[in-house]
Amino acid sequence: MKSRRSIREFSDRAISKRLLVKILEAASVAPTGAGVAGTHILVLEDPTIRRKLREICERGERDWVDSQPESVRERLSNLPGFSCTKEYIETAPVFLAVTTRPLDPEIPYAVESAFLAVGYMLVMIEGMGLGTVTYTPSFTRVDDEKLLDELLDLPEGETVQVFLPIGYPKIKRESKPEHGFYNVYHNQFGVPFTIET
Amino acid sequence: MKSRRSIREFSDRAISKRLLVKILEAASVAPTGAGVAGTHILVLEDPTIRRKLREICERGERDWVDSQPESVRERLSNLPGFSCTKEYIETAPVFLAVTTRPLDPEIPYAVESAFLAVGYMLVMIEGMGLGTVTYTPSFTRVDDEKLLDELLDLPEGETVQVFLPIGYPKIKRESKPEHGFYNVYHNQFGVPFTIET
Repeated sequence: MKSRRSIREFSDRAISKRLLVKILEAASVAPTGAGVAGTHILVLEDPTIRRKLREICERGERDWVDSQPESVRERLSNLPGFSCTKEYIETAPVFLAVTTRPLDPEIPYAVESAFLAVGYMLVMIEGMGLGTVTYTPSFTRVDDEKLLDELLDLPEGETVQVFLPIGYPKIKRESKPEHGFYNVYHNQFGVPFTIET
Repeated sequence: MKSRRSIREFSDRAISKRLLVKILEAASVAPTGAGVAGTHILVLEDPTIRRKLREICERGERDWVDSQPESVRERLSNLPGFSCTKEYIETAPVFLAVTTRPLDPEIPYAVESAFLAVGYMLVMIEGMGLGTVTYTPSFTRVDDEKLLDELLDLPEGETVQVFLPIGYPKIKRESKPEHGFYNVYHNQFGVPFTIET
């Protein structure tokens, strides 16, 4: 887990079906709200769909960044590797879309469950020596969202929570420096928790 | 991952500080939206706080279940171990609250990031032979939410995403039957994905 880095550039090496199955299985064993299996995964292989997807996402991302508060834009521009250009949508050996219906009362905690499943997939992906980046498409225009829904044929209310481009990292990135844990409090918010507590 | 089961009854055996640190570290290495560390973890040890928390949560849970559609209530009643009685809030050797500010524009994808961190913690917890259940408190009355916020001294906008009672399982539960992966589609929603595709 500690060696995890966001990977946005992948080698050409293909991912075996066996490894892909392991990733998909990891998602399906994660816990879900009230035991409802409301998370869906699309394996996007069709090159035409991926090319169109890239166009929609890149335009949406540029609009979204422009709409963010100054402090977030600042942080984004300092994130290593962050860019509104998303070549990996077309080129990653495996490209998954994770979707659910956030407002469907039949799926309690839909978004929460989807991201637990994503967490499980990330650990599995890293554990097998593969890399990925959690890319959440952001749109400020309803029209762009509609284009995406049509492209993936999503039913009413079903929305993309995250895209996962997956492959062998092109360049092995250094692990992050150890930082222990942070943002941990003792009994009440704001009271520092130390391991000696 | 496959052997994961929700654990709601714990043995008295304490969790060493070393293992607790590993769990907290797992949360802090998960990816976050735009690299913002907006997830907070409270280690709840104070017995008075835990007793009051249990009262608030049990009452809230009963109200929430009553407010759910028939189909969800049905499913809940069939979930093994599901109950509005939450003894583990008082008795689990370690009890964590994961909080964030879902509507704060300075924390993009706050809920999503919090649940990625929870996914990482779950894998770590299971990997060390411990058990937990992701318990998301549900309230239908604003007053109950206020009581919770006051008890944990949460600042404006900060809300509990999930509680994690953690300990050694009292009874070792059988693994679930293998089911491969489910809800996986090919290129477009609804098109079945098989590994032979």
